[in-house]
Amino acid sequence: MIIGLTEKLKNDFGITFKHPALLDEAFTHASYVNEHPRKKLKYYERIEFLGDAVMQLCVSEYLYKRYPSMPEGKLSRLRAAMVCEDSFSKFAKECNFDEYIRLGKGEEKANARQRPSLLCDIFESFIGALYQDQGKKGVDQFIGQVVFPKLDMGWFDHLLDHKTELQELLQKSGEVAISYTEVTDEGPEHDKQYTMTVSANGTVLGTGQGHSKKAAEQNAANAALKKLNAK
Amino acid sequence: MIIGLTEKLKNDFGITFKHPALLDEAFTHASYVNEHPRKKLKYYERIEFLGDAVMQLCVSEYLYKRYPSMPEGKLSRLRAAMVCEDSFSKFAKECNFDEYIRLGKGEEKANARQRPSLLCDIFESFIGALYQDQGKKGVDQFIGQVVFPKLDMGWFDHLLDHKTELQELLQKSGEVAISYTEVTDEGPEHDKQYTMTVSANGTVLGTGQGHSKKAAEQNAANAALKKLNAK
Repeated sequence: MIIGLTEKLKNDFGITFKHPALLDEAFTHASYVNEHPRKKLKYYERIEFLGDAVMQLCVSEYLYKRYPSMPEGKLSRLRAAMVCEDSFSKFAKECNFDEYIRLGKGEEKANARQRPSLLCDIFESFIGALYQDQGKKGVDQFIGQVVFPKLDMGWFDHLLDHKTELQELLQKSGEVAISYTEVTDEGPEHDKQYTMTVSANGTVLGTGQGHSKKAAEQNAANAALKKLNAK
Repeated sequence: MIIGLTEKLKNDFGITFKHPALLDEAFTHASYVNEHPRKKLKYYERIEFLGDAVMQLCVSEYLYKRYPSMPEGKLSRLRAAMVCEDSFSKFAKECNFDEYIRLGKGEEKANARQRPSLLCDIFESFIGALYQDQGKKGVDQFIGQVVFPKLDMGWFDHLLDHKTELQELLQKSGEVAISYTEVTDEGPEHDKQYTMTVSANGTVLGTGQGHSKKAAEQNAANAALKKLNAK
């Protein structure tokens, strides 16, 4: 058993593993197994193979449902930005998973514990263990806490331009005049809340709020996209 | 509704869609939508995005469970051979999915209906529709009929060398003498059935049968792998 890991998962994420041996496998690097041949340990690579595919599906399904009018190309670019070494290593670090990896001495000296590729592997292998222990539902709950909030925190905003998406959608069927109008600004100067509407050929399609005009416009475009798609 | 498709799925695979509109989306190409702008149709690309990830997980999970002693590298190579345009286009063709695609006239003339990349897309989009309609269980049942039997039919045998895998597993803990011995050959000359055993340091680990000595050896190695892994 890896000391402290089960408590950590329980306290931080409300997760209790039915089969903690899966966690041992998920957090054990091949270099540790090689140094302890008598313990007959398993290392994480097989379980990581599974976890990688689990993440691919869970993220795809979430994006597919959350952005019902987003074209496939944009969905794919967004998925690629979320399901990648850079993102996964950050998620692993945020969960303090680096502290629980069982590493061989050589790898420890080489500072592998902080290597993004290893952190990414551990995030995937943890997901593979969680999937086996608690099914897709358990994984969806965990990444609902750790991964998906990043969309609202702006991590992927460079890929989420709702104004461009709305424009592309509206102009599919010919030329359309799109305009954004400020309705109100409320609150004190340092905490102003703007409300904007977006119109096509004079008809209001959506309203959005935000702490800047730009953010309020993006939210108005997003509201319009949701409405148009629900038709 | 696409004529004949729901009957086909019911007769061939016992599948009845609760939401047949998903099937319409899955089998409609963008070129058809462009030619019929008034019908406000959806084309398959978004649903294909989902189906691709569904296949990735279903195949990964199946391989992970079926080959419990297979190292990650080999699992990945096998998955890549199963989840690819070449395989998916063959599965789509086998299911006669090509007959039901709604295509624009230009694409029809260009013989897109038989293009492997389009057939692959349609297989993925069908899987995306099936997943939304009947969950992962429904997809597992369908690919249990169409995809996984190909493993036993030898489609991927060049990637499934059980003898090498057994040797690698046994020699992990030091030098081991592995030998294959013919036990019997039965049946007429044109339909002979060979039985072989595999031993490590003189202890029999597995028995296998086949229509050639080579096939019987592979099956003996596979039996040994299953036994060693169950320990």
